[in-house]
Amino acid sequence: MQPINPTYRRTFAPPVMEARRWIEGKRFSPEQPLILLSQAAPVDPPPRGLAQAMADALMENPAAHLYGPVLGMPELRAELAAQWSAAYGGVIAPEQVAVTAGCNQAFTAVMSTLAGAGDEVIVPLPFYFNHKMWLDMEGVGCVALPTGDDLMPDPERAAALVTERTRAIVLVSPNNPTGREYPPELLRAFFDLARTRGLALILDETYRDFHSQDGAPHGLFADPDWDDTLIHLYSFSKAYRLTGHRVGAIMASGQRLAEVEKFLDTVAICPPQVGQIGALWGMRNLKDWLAGERAEILARRDALVAGFQRLPGWELMGCGAYFAYVRHPFGKPSDVVAREMVDKAALLVLPGTMFGPRRAEGGTGQAEATLRIAFANADAAGLAEVVDRLSALDL
Amino acid sequence: MQPINPTYRRTFAPPVMEARRWIEGKRFSPEQPLILLSQAAPVDPPPRGLAQAMADALMENPAAHLYGPVLGMPELRAELAAQWSAAYGGVIAPEQVAVTAGCNQAFTAVMSTLAGAGDEVIVPLPFYFNHKMWLDMEGVGCVALPTGDDLMPDPERAAALVTERTRAIVLVSPNNPTGREYPPELLRAFFDLARTRGLALILDETYRDFHSQDGAPHGLFADPDWDDTLIHLYSFSKAYRLTGHRVGAIMASGQRLAEVEKFLDTVAICPPQVGQIGALWGMRNLKDWLAGERAEILARRDALVAGFQRLPGWELMGCGAYFAYVRHPFGKPSDVVAREMVDKAALLVLPGTMFGPRRAEGGTGQAEATLRIAFANADAAGLAEVVDRLSALDL
Repeated sequence: MQPINPTYRRTFAPPVMEARRWIEGKRFSPEQPLILLSQAAPVDPPPRGLAQAMADALMENPAAHLYGPVLGMPELRAELAAQWSAAYGGVIAPEQVAVTAGCNQAFTAVMSTLAGAGDEVIVPLPFYFNHKMWLDMEGVGCVALPTGDDLMPDPERAAALVTERTRAIVLVSPNNPTGREYPPELLRAFFDLARTRGLALILDETYRDFHSQDGAPHGLFADPDWDDTLIHLYSFSKAYRLTGHRVGAIMASGQRLAEVEKFLDTVAICPPQVGQIGALWGMRNLKDWLAGERAEILARRDALVAGFQRLPGWELMGCGAYFAYVRHPFGKPSDVVAREMVDKAALLVLPGTMFGPRRAEGGTGQAEATLRIAFANADAAGLAEVVDRLSALDL
Repeated sequence: MQPINPTYRRTFAPPVMEARRWIEGKRFSPEQPLILLSQAAPVDPPPRGLAQAMADALMENPAAHLYGPVLGMPELRAELAAQWSAAYGGVIAPEQVAVTAGCNQAFTAVMSTLAGAGDEVIVPLPFYFNHKMWLDMEGVGCVALPTGDDLMPDPERAAALVTERTRAIVLVSPNNPTGREYPPELLRAFFDLARTRGLALILDETYRDFHSQDGAPHGLFADPDWDDTLIHLYSFSKAYRLTGHRVGAIMASGQRLAEVEKFLDTVAICPPQVGQIGALWGMRNLKDWLAGERAEILARRDALVAGFQRLPGWELMGCGAYFAYVRHPFGKPSDVVAREMVDKAALLVLPGTMFGPRRAEGGTGQAEATLRIAFANADAAGLAEVVDRLSALDL
């Protein structure tokens, strides 16, 4: 038999695909249809104008079908640089921007240029599972930074985990899976820690467009030397409903992007052109529409927060962007709870065991006690129904 | 400063981007315009029907904008399985097929599941540079299998290179960069070697649609246990002019694809949907058109072969698919020759030094002596012009 790289054996299978298998072949009653709360993914297509812009490009612009530059379309890099500079009150040049085939690719590209087998990276718990998988598969040590009930990473605890093998700290804000928004001072403390210790701070802001605070979520880009420490990641998937087109972005130093270019050339050659055309059109034309999307998501968040207040035994630990992170009231580990919720409540959520180590693996028990609810696809009526079903649930 | 993974420092920058820098800002006379012979990439858009099918999907099919399965669209996997089974006289099931965002991604996904830092992979010279870059960046030893003037890899020489760290042998046929088509017996000998030694045989057939022989290029899929050894890679980019859409494929065992799914989930989430829709439409509707494309490329190949017969000092070592691999007559290393060809003949080709080690790096001198000419984008008149310019060249 052919060899299998042992690092692949050691990591887990894609959780979203695993959860899909829990519902495969199952029938749900018309009175209680399945509600999918497992994946942070829009379920509707983008606005018609955006789809039309992409369709027009396919018919009129030959370049839409052909290779583009490895680091992305120059116009899109420039637009990102301009809009981000304005939004964050900093100076970001087009040469500090790269476009990728989605934000997962942005993460893997950046991480590969930072850390190889035997190196270490600090990642708060609960983690985003694809970050953990990549580190596992690459033989990079994923050094878990435990969090308490507030789910907020502590820079001092992180500092104690830094060793001579540490290469980076990874933060996601607004956070996946917890929905927590990290305040500017906390982000600044991690930035200072990273700078002092010669590490990269990777800040994944995939959900920035749905942040509950107006204005810049942090001031890091205002530091004239931000790019000696900060690596910012972004996704167009959620904002413009472009998940199937694969468009994301990196902001980092030109030196870093020269290394990233090696990864992207080898793994992707270039980001898909149609997606980039759509993303650029969206950035230029959908500002008001996106503001409406944000308002809607924030309203859903409020509805869920209100709903959990009438749910005895359940605790809403974090709620923001697309996600609620909750403590369930049952005396069973979360993966058992999640599967039983499919059968008994027709709700598909992901268990905390997909976002952190079990007790047997050195965890604190947080993984067994928690669930992630990707609520953003359910409207107010749907969320009321979710709360009703949870309220009636007895496992 | 932030750390850089030393394996990234050790590999080289993307050759195609490097070559583009050689022509940046340069002006070429109207009498002698630049002829681009550096990249194996179509320069025209796909047939209008294919573009229309993709554009229609964007306007009518919401799923075209949303995430799909990690391993690709089921209909496309099934179509590939059916057409490949017929073409190769074997049995390939849809579960043995995965779709990727291009063939480079197919290679990196497969290789990651096979070999990690410290492992070894055997790669004939000259290599396809992105294969070499990936192995370098992953800390995998790229064990070079030198070739003589016929550019054909020798299974016996390969056998002598196998160690306990060897995980795979990589072959590309029709070959990039040499244009050589490996005969079925040679491929079988490598398959047998790989099977005997418990290795994977990765066979990249990106250029299969332009093979000069009719019928199956090998009989490996007819082996009922092909998937214990063979991993086949394919690209839709060249056949259907879809380079900017990023669609490729892997055929391998279901066990292998379960590991590949971990890589693809983490690096790509899913292949771009529009590209998959286009690829499927192409497979179902463009058989005759593709046969015409092949005939045209083969005619260009014949024109180039004839042209080289009137070129004293130059030697055409290999010619097929998109590429000619040639020995230049100048007493300078190929990278110097290639740059001078830009200025003196307005021809952009890639030097052999991008496809193998220099003498100082342990090479045989082949790298310095050779050039790759990606001829497929030049028509008969253009190729005559190329030969004329080479004939007049004195460096």
